[in-house]
Amino acid sequence: MIQPTAAIIIIGNEILSGRTQDTNIAYIAKKLASVGIDLLEVRVIPDEEDRIIDAVNEIRPRYTYVFTTGGIGATHDDITAASIAKAFQKPLVENEEALQILENHYKERFNTSRRRMAMMPEGVTLIENPVSKAPSFQIENVFVLAGMPSVMQGMLEYILPRLTTGKPFYYNTVTSGILEGTIAEKLTEVQNQHPGVSIGSYPFYTIPNIGTSLVIRGQDKNLITKATEAVIAMVESFGITPKVERQV
Amino acid sequence: MIQPTAAIIIIGNEILSGRTQDTNIAYIAKKLASVGIDLLEVRVIPDEEDRIIDAVNEIRPRYTYVFTTGGIGATHDDITAASIAKAFQKPLVENEEALQILENHYKERFNTSRRRMAMMPEGVTLIENPVSKAPSFQIENVFVLAGMPSVMQGMLEYILPRLTTGKPFYYNTVTSGILEGTIAEKLTEVQNQHPGVSIGSYPFYTIPNIGTSLVIRGQDKNLITKATEAVIAMVESFGITPKVERQV
Repeated sequence: MIQPTAAIIIIGNEILSGRTQDTNIAYIAKKLASVGIDLLEVRVIPDEEDRIIDAVNEIRPRYTYVFTTGGIGATHDDITAASIAKAFQKPLVENEEALQILENHYKERFNTSRRRMAMMPEGVTLIENPVSKAPSFQIENVFVLAGMPSVMQGMLEYILPRLTTGKPFYYNTVTSGILEGTIAEKLTEVQNQHPGVSIGSYPFYTIPNIGTSLVIRGQDKNLITKATEAVIAMVESFGITPKVERQV
Repeated sequence: MIQPTAAIIIIGNEILSGRTQDTNIAYIAKKLASVGIDLLEVRVIPDEEDRIIDAVNEIRPRYTYVFTTGGIGATHDDITAASIAKAFQKPLVENEEALQILENHYKERFNTSRRRMAMMPEGVTLIENPVSKAPSFQIENVFVLAGMPSVMQGMLEYILPRLTTGKPFYYNTVTSGILEGTIAEKLTEVQNQHPGVSIGSYPFYTIPNIGTSLVIRGQDKNLITKATEAVIAMVESFGITPKVERQV
């Protein structure tokens, strides 16, 4: 089985300005991990045509799937569809199917601005929007999603069955008040003895809350379990009982 | 005055796996905005040497400043310093000044693993760590910061006076329950009449909480004020009183 890979492009002035705390990255990351698609890159870029074209064309040959978020609404600052069309050198056309969905949904509230949301690159596959109805689209391996978390989540749910899935990753977390520098040497030994998992060390240091979370991650549940026991024993060798959170 | 620019490289398996909700992007973004440094790109990449080298070398010629976060601790999975040394084709050496700081801080708890944190590219400038003491470093326009939010924040505070600042951006936010598609056309007019600011439209759609935030952003306070009044008047023309949050 070939493990599929993915990247996210966040089209987001509001993230780069610090106005909005992004939550889409973590949400998509978790979802992809749960179906065995490896998220290997995220880029946050401004809402600018050239930047969108460059990022999409640089990233799409490198990963199985690319997800973009943001810039697909009805206002003047929504330039994602037009930019993606240029990236793929396709004309931007009124998508008949999208137009129908929009007309049916908005009825007498349908207007020129909302009609703009039917403009998509030629030849796309629609992505349904179970939340606020205005659909988005997939073009080749690029999935164009909304920036609004609730809508993005609905769209992602809708497209998941289309994606080739892989072997999911799981992880256990072993947390204690021991400082990273104290356990580093023994941790390296545990890592070396368990090549089938990757052990990450994440210290936290917000007084009085100080210590380290050790994350044992991999695709083989048995190996994760064995490595987790070894990490726990290592922490206990310092006379400390860690807190253990298990996925497996 | 030339406006300085910046990019962030998040070296973060824990972000890509969805285990950790990143908060460093928003924190750094806000800080940079407040001193007039334009954050124009963020990349999240895996803790892998090749990926770090490629990202650093691709990004550093493009922006005034590059900030990396993560991977500078004492454990086997902390490979940022060694990777940055390779990116700059510098030898990785024991930094005397860093060694002294670490020895003074850890005293009898100083050990081989902690000594590892003194390994840095040759010829760097240290970045003090007011929180957990282990210093980091600056090499040319690349600032290597911790991944732990509290430590990253302390380091950022420490280096801010070193940075060339620009004209800060400010924004006001006008929020109402009007749907984006309803105001889109009039909003375009307001934007066209106020070229000195950029007006972003951010719908929200988490039932029953539905509406749009209009963000008026720019560097000239007078222009922002004028455009904000125009946006408020536009919303009021629909018989609705918006909620206004002002920075200026």
